[in-house]
Amino acid sequence: MFHSVFTIAIILTVSVDCGRILVFPHDGSHWVNMNTLIKELHSKGHHVTVIRAADSWYIKEHSPHYNSITVDFAASGDEAFFKLFVSRQLQIRQEKCQFWTSFSLDMELKKRFSEMHRKICEMVVHIIENQKLISSIREAKNDVMLTDPANGGGVLLAHYLALPLVFNVRWTVHGEAHFSIAPSPLSYVPFPLALLTDRMTFFQRVYNMLFYIVRLFLYRRIVGAHYSALCNRYFGPDLDYFELFQAADIWLMRVDFVFEFPRPTMPNIVYIGCFQCKPPSPLPADLEAFVQSSGEHGVVIMSLGTLVGDLPPDIDNEIAAALAELPQKVIWRHTGKRPSTLGNNTMLVDWLPQNDLLGHSKTRAFVSHGGTNGILESIYHGIPIVGLPLVFDQHDNLSRMKYRGVATVLDVATIEKNVFLEALQHVINEPSYKINMLKLSKLERDKPIPPLDSAIFWIEFVMRHKGAGHLRTKSYKMSWYAYHSIDVIAFLLLVVLLTALLTFAVIRYICCRACMKKPFEQD
Amino acid sequence: MFHSVFTIAIILTVSVDCGRILVFPHDGSHWVNMNTLIKELHSKGHHVTVIRAADSWYIKEHSPHYNSITVDFAASGDEAFFKLFVSRQLQIRQEKCQFWTSFSLDMELKKRFSEMHRKICEMVVHIIENQKLISSIREAKNDVMLTDPANGGGVLLAHYLALPLVFNVRWTVHGEAHFSIAPSPLSYVPFPLALLTDRMTFFQRVYNMLFYIVRLFLYRRIVGAHYSALCNRYFGPDLDYFELFQAADIWLMRVDFVFEFPRPTMPNIVYIGCFQCKPPSPLPADLEAFVQSSGEHGVVIMSLGTLVGDLPPDIDNEIAAALAELPQKVIWRHTGKRPSTLGNNTMLVDWLPQNDLLGHSKTRAFVSHGGTNGILESIYHGIPIVGLPLVFDQHDNLSRMKYRGVATVLDVATIEKNVFLEALQHVINEPSYKINMLKLSKLERDKPIPPLDSAIFWIEFVMRHKGAGHLRTKSYKMSWYAYHSIDVIAFLLLVVLLTALLTFAVIRYICCRACMKKPFEQD
Repeated sequence: MFHSVFTIAIILTVSVDCGRILVFPHDGSHWVNMNTLIKELHSKGHHVTVIRAADSWYIKEHSPHYNSITVDFAASGDEAFFKLFVSRQLQIRQEKCQFWTSFSLDMELKKRFSEMHRKICEMVVHIIENQKLISSIREAKNDVMLTDPANGGGVLLAHYLALPLVFNVRWTVHGEAHFSIAPSPLSYVPFPLALLTDRMTFFQRVYNMLFYIVRLFLYRRIVGAHYSALCNRYFGPDLDYFELFQAADIWLMRVDFVFEFPRPTMPNIVYIGCFQCKPPSPLPADLEAFVQSSGEHGVVIMSLGTLVGDLPPDIDNEIAAALAELPQKVIWRHTGKRPSTLGNNTMLVDWLPQNDLLGHSKTRAFVSHGGTNGILESIYHGIPIVGLPLVFDQHDNLSRMKYRGVATVLDVATIEKNVFLEALQHVINEPSYKINMLKLSKLERDKPIPPLDSAIFWIEFVMRHKGAGHLRTKSYKMSWYAYHSIDVIAFLLLVVLLTALLTFAVIRYICCRACMKKPFEQD
Repeated sequence: MFHSVFTIAIILTVSVDCGRILVFPHDGSHWVNMNTLIKELHSKGHHVTVIRAADSWYIKEHSPHYNSITVDFAASGDEAFFKLFVSRQLQIRQEKCQFWTSFSLDMELKKRFSEMHRKICEMVVHIIENQKLISSIREAKNDVMLTDPANGGGVLLAHYLALPLVFNVRWTVHGEAHFSIAPSPLSYVPFPLALLTDRMTFFQRVYNMLFYIVRLFLYRRIVGAHYSALCNRYFGPDLDYFELFQAADIWLMRVDFVFEFPRPTMPNIVYIGCFQCKPPSPLPADLEAFVQSSGEHGVVIMSLGTLVGDLPPDIDNEIAAALAELPQKVIWRHTGKRPSTLGNNTMLVDWLPQNDLLGHSKTRAFVSHGGTNGILESIYHGIPIVGLPLVFDQHDNLSRMKYRGVATVLDVATIEKNVFLEALQHVINEPSYKINMLKLSKLERDKPIPPLDSAIFWIEFVMRHKGAGHLRTKSYKMSWYAYHSIDVIAFLLLVVLLTALLTFAVIRYICCRACMKKPFEQD
């Protein structure tokens, strides 16, 4: 094999209609992803309008990249509650509370989730019933609705406005997105949150199926019900919300197969995992100086995500004490009270340029809560992970990384200095973590086109062709028994049975005739 | 919406290892596709070695684009028989022969197919057992096996040589390629050759299932058996040919969803439909002069594929007489005796530059036998079709085009001048055919990267990463009952049943105790 460097220049001259995109986002960390797409769409010359609730946590009213429509309505849920939820979860795990305490907290969360979705439905009603507002949206002649179907507002509004629909999606009102649209054999497709892989034992497969059934029931009952009710109210009883949602033209899926296990997919699913990843920009001078001061040992980056700036003091102290004993320097995104055991090697920051730090040549490990964005950035830059999962899908995300040999995972609630220190040292010094992560990184970066370009291409595709019907099966309109060919199988079994019975009857008749004939012959 | 023209320049600088590619092609029209890939791979600097049988129909020993290994063995099947088969098929349809005659011809064809595959297996044995040959192939240190799994030789050889495997595929030893790897619900995925769409009535679904079962049985029994036997012989009884074949890293599928109905797919399936299509080159001077002489009426192109240069004289005469009455000029690929009814407007040619003619601005319609390549070229250039299907998948291909409103389909065996003329005039003059075809063409051309580049990218990807394991499910290694969760469902039903029985028994016991107690109390 001889080596060379090729430059593949793919020049597509396409007539793109610079169009109008209506965005119904999902608040919280999901907005970070949506905003990346919006900035790119804006840079391509498209006009973006974002619908936001008056009490939005993250979605700013004014932006150079979009116009906003602020709906005078409180619908973004309760940020304080989610923060409280995280700390209560930790407390329960720390105190090893009984199942019942944990379960009731989980139910409380689901109730709040349900409440949030109810409010989003009311916000949609608010928009539809406001003649002036809905007329102005209509008159804007948008070309496409771009939405994160973690809430169903965008789906309902798109149907009301007869707009083609593009999803920027990982989770939906009914759970993980693939399960709503692609065949997902539970024998080798682990349901997210079940902490399983694509190779399961018999009892893991049993667990996977039960887990799926329970989750599906909960999602439909607690969350989906609000949208179905609204759907019935505006579009009649013959149309279900689930159907509207399955009719989306393109699903921009925020994962890929460096993260996800291989599984069936659909022609209108486009994988844009790591679309927010990019080469690092230079760090601010003070941060760069701190990083450089780490010498050959390098630095460790620690961040527990948007929601969690600090942990209970006892946990913070165990963590800080462990970090203090590292020869590395540490940059820790920490907003609360300064831990008393903090070492001189550790810098606390309110906010950190995560992508730029993970892409720095001196970075040795990433202590992460396991949010999808952070994990994908870590993969992109080839940085092994020490996982401290807190809530939601974080345990499952990190279990996938552990399975791939690029992370160790600890229970943050019961963390001890020595255990954490050992885990850190192991991940930093045992070469297999780095080697495996670099392999994943190489796969992640090796795509025919960058995932962000792919996302923009497909949004523009839907605008150009007013949908993507040729990529979307309409099989969701079939009844469940027809979809699974149960009626056909039953029919064929019946035919076989009747044929067998008929054959048997004929043979019996012939035999009887033969038996009866004999006596006559003998006569 | 404001309009503008954007130039999307996607510049990927990738370090490509210019490598060594071993190709085990399938002879006949399939070679045309493989050769397109080979030429492109060669132009990228890769070294291509093609394995061919001594009696190959199409695969030349010497080429500027590849080296060849000629195996001194007759394995390419009987071209004369296939030509005879086509004419016999026509005769049967013309004479409206009985089912039995047609069936016996079909069985004869299957026998010949089986024979061809047996010979390919022998050719593989020939290679493996020839120490000098196999050593030289090994020593060449190829990076990947590229094969068309319409025969299984490449799959077996790749496993023997421990090479990663890339398929350039539409059909396999077991039928249509998707059915071997992607979940294919028979409720909305029509089995090719069944002449069905993705919206079926109940009885069409019954037919689809029966058709699938029969075809699968035939393929496995008549064709697959040879490969399984060879697999057992060289790799032991624990490894089935089907498993080897499902383990391919990338499936470059020679269709896309402008042609195919939307259906589940897999992450390692890459759609390269129309990869051979390209903007037209200028025509040879005489052909261009003939085309220009057509004036405003334009031209009709007619070709019945590689195998069929002419038809029985009576059919040829009906066709020629119809063409003679068109105001258009006609270019007809025709190699046999000149039809007596041929008009002055019709030019017969031994060979025609199909892509360049279909891409000519004066072309109005394409009279085609319905081979996949021709159909995709027709879609690419937006030319409506009059279909005259002969054998194999041609009826099914054309039925898809008819369903999309871009073709009419006639039975060539019983064709009459007036019917053919009417069909031609209808397709040329009824605007809906052209409008629908232009819509398909617009979709076909609107891809993030050209399909040929995509094919090359993924072949190189497999070379770079020595496979594409992260995109390929290993679920094919599961038993059928585990794959379909039948064991899990049975177990859960059993648990439910036992729980119900136990509950019933406990209630009965309590009731009995209560009943028995009363008499005592009364005592």
